[in-house]
Amino acid sequence: MVVILKQNADKKQLDNLVNWLGSQEIKVQATVGVHTTILGLVGDTSKIDIDMIQSLPIVETVKRIQEPYKNSNRKFHPLDSIIDVRGQKVGEGMFHVMAGPCSIEGEDQIINIAKAVKSSGASMLRGGAFKPRTSPYAFQGLRGEGLELMKKAREATGLPIVTEIMSASHLELFEDVDLIQVGARDMQNFELLKELGHCKKPILLKRGLANTIEELLMSAEYIMAGGNPNVILCERGIRTFETATRNTLDISAIPYLKEKSHLPIIVDPSHASGVSWLVNPLAMAAIAAGADGLMIEVHNNPPKALSDGAQSLTPAQFDETMKSIKGLVAYMGKSMGKVEQ
Amino acid sequence: MVVILKQNADKKQLDNLVNWLGSQEIKVQATVGVHTTILGLVGDTSKIDIDMIQSLPIVETVKRIQEPYKNSNRKFHPLDSIIDVRGQKVGEGMFHVMAGPCSIEGEDQIINIAKAVKSSGASMLRGGAFKPRTSPYAFQGLRGEGLELMKKAREATGLPIVTEIMSASHLELFEDVDLIQVGARDMQNFELLKELGHCKKPILLKRGLANTIEELLMSAEYIMAGGNPNVILCERGIRTFETATRNTLDISAIPYLKEKSHLPIIVDPSHASGVSWLVNPLAMAAIAAGADGLMIEVHNNPPKALSDGAQSLTPAQFDETMKSIKGLVAYMGKSMGKVEQ
Amino acid sequence: MVVILKQNADKKQLDNLVNWLGSQEIKVQATVGVHTTILGLVGDTSKIDIDMIQSLPIVETVKRIQEPYKNSNRKFHPLDSIIDVRGQKVGEGMFHVMAGPCSIEGEDQIINIAKAVKSSGASMLRGGAFKPRTSPYAFQGLRGEGLELMKKAREATGLPIVTEIMSASHLELFEDVDLIQVGARDMQNFELLKELGHCKKPILLKRGLANTIEELLMSAEYIMAGGNPNVILCERGIRTFETATRNTLDISAIPYLKEKSHLPIIVDPSHASGVSWLVNPLAMAAIAAGADGLMIEVHNNPPKALSDGAQSLTPAQFDETMKSIKGLVAYMGKSMGKVEQ
Amino acid sequence: MVVILKQNADKKQLDNLVNWLGSQEIKVQATVGVHTTILGLVGDTSKIDIDMIQSLPIVETVKRIQEPYKNSNRKFHPLDSIIDVRGQKVGEGMFHVMAGPCSIEGEDQIINIAKAVKSSGASMLRGGAFKPRTSPYAFQGLRGEGLELMKKAREATGLPIVTEIMSASHLELFEDVDLIQVGARDMQNFELLKELGHCKKPILLKRGLANTIEELLMSAEYIMAGGNPNVILCERGIRTFETATRNTLDISAIPYLKEKSHLPIIVDPSHASGVSWLVNPLAMAAIAAGADGLMIEVHNNPPKALSDGAQSLTPAQFDETMKSIKGLVAYMGKSMGKVEQ
Repeated sequence: MVVILKQNADKKQLDNLVNWLGSQEIKVQATVGVHTTILGLVGDTSKIDIDMIQSLPIVETVKRIQEPYKNSNRKFHPLDSIIDVRGQKVGEGMFHVMAGPCSIEGEDQIINIAKAVKSSGASMLRGGAFKPRTSPYAFQGLRGEGLELMKKAREATGLPIVTEIMSASHLELFEDVDLIQVGARDMQNFELLKELGHCKKPILLKRGLANTIEELLMSAEYIMAGGNPNVILCERGIRTFETATRNTLDISAIPYLKEKSHLPIIVDPSHASGVSWLVNPLAMAAIAAGADGLMIEVHNNPPKALSDGAQSLTPAQFDETMKSIKGLVAYMGKSMGKVEQ
Repeated sequence: MVVILKQNADKKQLDNLVNWLGSQEIKVQATVGVHTTILGLVGDTSKIDIDMIQSLPIVETVKRIQEPYKNSNRKFHPLDSIIDVRGQKVGEGMFHVMAGPCSIEGEDQIINIAKAVKSSGASMLRGGAFKPRTSPYAFQGLRGEGLELMKKAREATGLPIVTEIMSASHLELFEDVDLIQVGARDMQNFELLKELGHCKKPILLKRGLANTIEELLMSAEYIMAGGNPNVILCERGIRTFETATRNTLDISAIPYLKEKSHLPIIVDPSHASGVSWLVNPLAMAAIAAGADGLMIEVHNNPPKALSDGAQSLTPAQFDETMKSIKGLVAYMGKSMGKVEQ
Repeated sequence: MVVILKQNADKKQLDNLVNWLGSQEIKVQATVGVHTTILGLVGDTSKIDIDMIQSLPIVETVKRIQEPYKNSNRKFHPLDSIIDVRGQKVGEGMFHVMAGPCSIEGEDQIINIAKAVKSSGASMLRGGAFKPRTSPYAFQGLRGEGLELMKKAREATGLPIVTEIMSASHLELFEDVDLIQVGARDMQNFELLKELGHCKKPILLKRGLANTIEELLMSAEYIMAGGNPNVILCERGIRTFETATRNTLDISAIPYLKEKSHLPIIVDPSHASGVSWLVNPLAMAAIAAGADGLMIEVHNNPPKALSDGAQSLTPAQFDETMKSIKGLVAYMGKSMGKVEQ
Repeated sequence: MVVILKQNADKKQLDNLVNWLGSQEIKVQATVGVHTTILGLVGDTSKIDIDMIQSLPIVETVKRIQEPYKNSNRKFHPLDSIIDVRGQKVGEGMFHVMAGPCSIEGEDQIINIAKAVKSSGASMLRGGAFKPRTSPYAFQGLRGEGLELMKKAREATGLPIVTEIMSASHLELFEDVDLIQVGARDMQNFELLKELGHCKKPILLKRGLANTIEELLMSAEYIMAGGNPNVILCERGIRTFETATRNTLDISAIPYLKEKSHLPIIVDPSHASGVSWLVNPLAMAAIAAGADGLMIEVHNNPPKALSDGAQSLTPAQFDETMKSIKGLVAYMGKSMGKVEQ
């Protein structure tokens, strides 16, 4: 931590600060210039409340130097983590595609999609049972019933299932889910993260749409500090001024996270772009940048009345995209996760 | 809703779409140009899934025209709402200052601050019992015990109490809280919002740091659609590229919300700026822009060892700021909320 | 400047760095921790290339501590600057409203608007002769001819004239302009800024739509370092994710700039909001936050055929807004600039 | 264009608007709902001033439907454009790497770097002669002299040269430059763009750091509408809230631009990330997303005193990166541009 003092900082207050920091086992060294005095603080500064230091009248600014995350930090855990999801290994050379519909709508729908995405090469089934919707008037998902349908689709295909949790109070319902997703809007739902830290389930933690990479790792830290090391990170686009795409995929986050953390990282090109024709090129970019997997939405079927001709296109599009994905994954020296049944 | 078709859209698919929309009681009118065909849709389009329409192969883009919020919309409720918080009226000419510490730390602390802010003119006491902290290693608040201390401070001063809830499972503990705050990170914690819609408590809904004004109103809609009309909105700064201030106070949100909604709106200049010396000018700006109140953090006392000389300054600063606030509130023709005891 | 070293930084390279910094008259002090070593650098670090330091293999990150601006920095010039614009004093208690049309369209138009805004209390006339337009197919302004019409309007009313320059090669044409505006898109047109530093004309420097406050001051620095101290800053909204308003007025920039710099700062609520009904409340907020003036667009008259009933509204709206402005300016203890003729 | 009317819009004003639009050869069709009336406008709406329509008292909002760019629009020019840069073809299957130092510092430096990057496989030499620097106190480049040194490096290697122009008044100096770069800060320097439209030189147009993709295409339009079709686009990162990287590379911009425009698009991973260790993965992502080339900064040599051990690393890093690039370019079915001499 670095503390920049105000010009003419009161000597007595400064002594008090230095003494108090000493009592917290923080070593302080001052560099005194004409206009600026810099205090370098070393030791375990993660315990120090940066806002409290900032509020002192002698302080101009405070900057944190050390990464505030530990369990997820590659410095303290140099080797890649491998997360086991119902026998599938995520990380370290294995590449997984999680595919499925935005919302689960019925047994036939989810089983048919599960079979289709499996035959195209997906190794996990995603599907929304509890749906976070901006509008209270929009369909909120089949909830508990949706989870049961997911399990039937798993039975039919062997695919591990991935689905989103929206409240710690639903945790019991998720006991038999293979990979529990924390959605972007809940990335800083700290009460939920704490509860997830007390189970051993693999967690798929999506980056919030205006959260920094450091905040993503701090949310992983909540889960890991609770005792659950099974965290997979997911980049799904951030909110920027650009409106051509729904969000802006932060492709740099992939190599950046690979450098700073040992956790696997996957990419969701569907939510990042909001349009189906961008999924293929963004998936390719994610693989090339080093991602460990992809989460791809196979579009909801439109109402029957609308479906003539249109309906059958999207599974076919997914199949086409999977061909590109498999080729590039192999070129990059990774292996596709595979489910036998 | 406006649907822009792709060039050479398939005639049969278009007919299907128009017929299906008709079955949903949506009227459709087409404007056909050389390069573009525009479909104008009128009726209750809030039931139509915009993503589903967007996914059709004949569609280029879809734009929503009608505001998707109803209960909070001034069009359907032209008069200002007045929210009653333990006898204090919020909205329509009354101006309230909610003040208090970031975190509740002990009985003496909260009672002393409560007395101080009341004597300076605050009409509600804010304080954090459940604290959303980016780091799991930071102090997480006194939680239930903090709520009890808030009530003691209310007993001592008569000030209604405002404090943040972080999970629907804590609702029982908040039964005796006067104004329940939903923090910025939970603005789209929809499971929590739904539960708050089932009680009648006044809710202070803070804007998320990367949420649009429309999304803020949609979150209010969750609470109101559940049957609870007692919502107060709060602008507390948004996340932008600028790093000179912690967040960027979106001052335009105040008059914009006043035009589009009938709900009261208050401003939190402390979180918006992150530095105490900006609280005064931002508070003034908020009043001038038409806000119905302010939420101001009276800084936590630093550790005893650090407090010589520094400690006593912040209540004094608050008192100074309140003088400016009271003057401008009167100039703007509003009255300060007042608590007699 | 603070340099954070990588773990296990090469000792010889570190010595080279420290010696080289010493040769640049920079004092270095190291604080050595287990995981981090911090170098505090003091002296005139504005000469040090931060990117070069960053590129060294032993360096993890570099942070600048000292403000990189000097001429505009209040630390070195504690008193407010007062800028003289054709006899009008801008800054220190005087409040100026610059009003006029987006584009100058003809002699009658500009003279009529000039008379109208003067009678409502404006003290300068703004108008666009050279127009920066996103589209090459949009009207690009009357250019040189527009400047001549501005001068006629000045003759008719005595109002000093403010208009935008888009290229250093036009400088000669602007010799008789009273306040030369640098538009948001040109805030980092450094070749233009350098040329403006060589004249003595007052310059109105608008903040770029994605430029930080520090970058605004660095652009002021370009002009001032060239020998022209007559700079007025202008906040006009920044680009964020919010689309309800065209831009987001960064109201905090006003008190922040007042603290960090001695230059006057005005606000343009018209461009910040993009809609006329937000101009009044944003103008009020700007005054309350401490601005030294406002730039307000009096909307272009729509084509004759469209103007029945509509046309006469906007000058009236401006007049109404000026009443609020004058009241609040007086309440804040400032005086309106006035032009006698 | 779609115009949404206010509720209870004045009938006479509406007739005036419809009649006036008719006189502009715009066809209007109204869709009338209970709360909303939508006007669909078709015809050449690029001539209509959207701000003027927006300012009418009967109008609630206006949305542009048709893309406002024409010359750069793939709809009107379905085949990929190929731009000739001194005999090198950019676009349609050819992949080019432009490499070189941030600033040109001397003859030996630029010639040595030119030889190094050529031998690693670069097909153009980039280098800064006129340098846009945030600070007036930073090195501003060798300017005209730098251009001469670039030409010597071209003579020595045969590599076409790419360098940035900062003012239309320097155009004469750039007559012998092969590819003239317009920097991010000048993307909306419209006077410069107009001048570049009057020459036939290939132009490398970099996206501004807060400019939308549509604005980038509109700036290309300025050049093309002037008669110069030789535009290459460049994505170089946008400004967002994330501070882990200097900018956020908008990887989606590549496939998006490929869909909407026929112009070649290259990527600058050096400026996008600001750190050398991210250049390789971002370059890979760009290739996979469909880019036509890369611009890579080979870092400035640090001062001699600092260079022991460090200095020789960066050309070697570039060579290593080029191996990955060449492999992936071949995998994607493209060919590397090559300079024989």
